[in-house]
Amino acid sequence: MKELTNQYRDELLNNVMPFWLNHSIDKEYGGFLNSLDRDGSVFDTDKWIWMQGRSVWMFATLYNQMEKRKEWLDASVQGAEFLRRYGRSEEGYYFCVTRKGEPLVQPYQVFSNAFAAMGYGALAKALPASDYPALARETFELYLSRKENPKGRYNKLVPGSRPMKSFAFSMILCNLALELEETLGKDYVDRIVRELADEIRRSYYRPEFGVILEQVGADGGFVDSYDGRCFSPGHACEAMWFLMDIGSRLKDDELIRWAADVTLKSLERGWDKQYGGIFYYMDVKDKYPTWLDCDQKMWWVHLESLIATLQGYQLTGDERLLSWFKILHEYTWTHFKDPDYPEWYGYLNRRGEVLFPLKGGKFKTCFHLPRALLKIWRMLEEL
Amino acid sequence: MKELTNQYRDELLNNVMPFWLNHSIDKEYGGFLNSLDRDGSVFDTDKWIWMQGRSVWMFATLYNQMEKRKEWLDASVQGAEFLRRYGRSEEGYYFCVTRKGEPLVQPYQVFSNAFAAMGYGALAKALPASDYPALARETFELYLSRKENPKGRYNKLVPGSRPMKSFAFSMILCNLALELEETLGKDYVDRIVRELADEIRRSYYRPEFGVILEQVGADGGFVDSYDGRCFSPGHACEAMWFLMDIGSRLKDDELIRWAADVTLKSLERGWDKQYGGIFYYMDVKDKYPTWLDCDQKMWWVHLESLIATLQGYQLTGDERLLSWFKILHEYTWTHFKDPDYPEWYGYLNRRGEVLFPLKGGKFKTCFHLPRALLKIWRMLEEL
Repeated sequence: MKELTNQYRDELLNNVMPFWLNHSIDKEYGGFLNSLDRDGSVFDTDKWIWMQGRSVWMFATLYNQMEKRKEWLDASVQGAEFLRRYGRSEEGYYFCVTRKGEPLVQPYQVFSNAFAAMGYGALAKALPASDYPALARETFELYLSRKENPKGRYNKLVPGSRPMKSFAFSMILCNLALELEETLGKDYVDRIVRELADEIRRSYYRPEFGVILEQVGADGGFVDSYDGRCFSPGHACEAMWFLMDIGSRLKDDELIRWAADVTLKSLERGWDKQYGGIFYYMDVKDKYPTWLDCDQKMWWVHLESLIATLQGYQLTGDERLLSWFKILHEYTWTHFKDPDYPEWYGYLNRRGEVLFPLKGGKFKTCFHLPRALLKIWRMLEEL
Repeated sequence: MKELTNQYRDELLNNVMPFWLNHSIDKEYGGFLNSLDRDGSVFDTDKWIWMQGRSVWMFATLYNQMEKRKEWLDASVQGAEFLRRYGRSEEGYYFCVTRKGEPLVQPYQVFSNAFAAMGYGALAKALPASDYPALARETFELYLSRKENPKGRYNKLVPGSRPMKSFAFSMILCNLALELEETLGKDYVDRIVRELADEIRRSYYRPEFGVILEQVGADGGFVDSYDGRCFSPGHACEAMWFLMDIGSRLKDDELIRWAADVTLKSLERGWDKQYGGIFYYMDVKDKYPTWLDCDQKMWWVHLESLIATLQGYQLTGDERLLSWFKILHEYTWTHFKDPDYPEWYGYLNRRGEVLFPLKGGKFKTCFHLPRALLKIWRMLEEL
C-alpha cells in the first residue's frame, strides 16, 4: 500500500507536473501553450479556453492542497491573468483565442465559463484577499445563467421540436459548486448540490438501462434518438465521484451507495470484454453512436473511473469496487503511461495502441491526469 | 474487361439498388428512411436532409442514365415531394426533420441546399415539363447565395479574426453546376465551372505540400492551424474527378492532366502503407488532425478515389492511374462489400475491420456506392 501511495505521488511530482511547468507556460504572451507533442515541443499555439481555465485550477489546487510552491502559484496566476484579460467577450468566455489573446472562436461552449470559474475559484482559496473570489463568483453566475439553454444562440435544434437537456451541464455544476464553497457560501452550496444530485438521479439515470444517459427529454424521459441513446461510461463514473463528494458532504449514505452502484453498472456495461479498457461512447440500445471514435480508449475516461472506484471503495467498503480499481490501475499504467517521455498518452485505439502520441491538445491539458494522481494519492494515504 | 464491367453493373442492379428500394422508402410518411442496419432493418427514423436529397438524385439519375424504370422514378419523386413539403425553412433546407417531417435541426449546414438542388435537378431531366426545373434553379440560387459565408449565423468563428474559406463549398458547387446544366443553361455553367476550377487550383491546392487543403486563408494562403493543416485525400480525389468532368467539358487537357496528377499525389500521400486503404483525414505537417476518427477507412473515400483513378486513366492513359485503380478495386471489394447481406459496409477501422456494420446512417445513404458503380460501369464499357 505504501508503495502504491508513493507511485501516485511520485508520478505527479516528478513526472507530470514538471512536464507542464517546463513546456506549457507561455513566457512570452502569458497563459498556457497546450498543443504539446510527445516530448513537450509545441506544435500549435492557439489557446483553447477550457484548457486555460483547467490549468489555472490544477496549479492553484496543488498549491492549496499539496505544498505551497511558489512556482505553482505563479503559473496559476499568470494563466488567470491571461484569461481575465483576453478570455472573455460580452457573451461569455470564448472557446479559443490566438497565442496573443485575439478572439478566434465564439463563446458557443458554456463550459469555457465553468472552467474559468473553477480556475478563479482555486485562486480565491490561495489568495483570499485578491479579487479572485469576486471574479470566481461572477464567472460562476455567468455559467449558471445559461442553465436553461446552455447553447444559447448557437443551439442548432429547432426550438420546441424535441426538447432535450444535457447531462454535462448539471454534472459540471456539481463539481464547480463544491470547488467554489468559499466563494459561494456553505448554505448555497448545500442547497444547489442537493438539487443537482436529485436531478441527476431522477432525470439522467434511466432505470430501464441501469445507466446515466448523456441527453434526456426535458421532462427527464428516455428519447429514442441518436442523441437520446448516447451513454458515456467514463462521464458517468466521473459524475459518480462528484456525487460521492456530495454524499460525503451532506452525510447522505444512501446517495453514496447509489453512486457506487451506478459506478459498478457503468463499468460492467462500458468495459470492452474483447480488448480491455472502457469505451468512450456507447449506444444504450446497442445500435450506433453518432461518433466514429466511440470505441477508442481515452485517458480521462480511465482516470476518472479510477477515482470513482477507489472513492466508492473507501466510502462503502464494497470489494467489487476495489477489484475494479485494481483492473483499472493495471490497464491505465500499462497503456497510458509513456515509458520513454514524461506525461501520459491520451488517445488509444480500441486495441489500446497509441493513436496520437501527443501530451496536450485541444482537449488534453494539465487536468485529468494530475487531478487523478492527486486525489488517488490522498485517498491511498487515508486508507 | 467484360467480366469486370458486368461485376459493377450486376452489383448495382442486383445487390445495391434492390436494398434501397426495399428498405429505404418510407411508404407511410414519404421520403427515405435512412438509418438501416446490416440487414436493412430500420434502427432510427429521423430524416437527414442531405440523405433525402442524395437519394432523390440517385434514383432519378439511374432512371435518366440507365433505364426508364418506373420504380426508380417513383422513388425519386416521392422523396422530392417530401423534401419540398417538409425540408425547407425560410433560411434554407433543414439539416434534419422527424419521420413525419417536423423540423428538428436548423439549416446550419448549407450542403442540405446543395443536395436538395441536385435531387430536383435530376428530376428536372426526367420530367422537364414539371416544376422541378424551377425548383432546382431556386434551390441552386439558395446554395450559391451563401458562398461568402456558408455557415451564416451558425458560424462560430469570430468575424475577421482569422478569415478562412472552405474547399467543400466550391468543390460541391463544381459537381452541382454540371448536374444542373439543363436548368442553368450551358453558358452559365461554362463560366461558373471555369471560375471554380481556377479557384481550386489557385487557392486550395498548396504546391508546398502537393495536395488540396480543406481550408485555406481567405486570400488562398496556407494557415498553420488545426483547420488549416487538414488534408482529406478522399475529398481531394472526389474533387479531381469533378475537375476532370469540367476539363472534358471545356476541352482543357491541361486541367485534366493537372487533376490526374493531383489524384496521384493525394493517393501517394493518403495511402496507409501499414494496413492499406486511404486515411480519412491527415495533418499536412504530420501533426494531429482534430478528429480522432482520422485513420479510419470510409467507403466513400475509396469509391470516389476509384472513380478518379479510372477516369484519369481513361482521359490521360497514365498507367500509374490504372495501377492505383487495380489496388483500390481490390481493397474496396474485399473490405467494403458485405459477403452475407446486401449493400456494403461504410465504416472500417484503420486495419480494415468493420467498425459499424450499418448500411445507412446519418451520413450514408443511396449515393456514393451506387454512383460509383454506375460511373465505373459506364467507363469500363467505354474502355
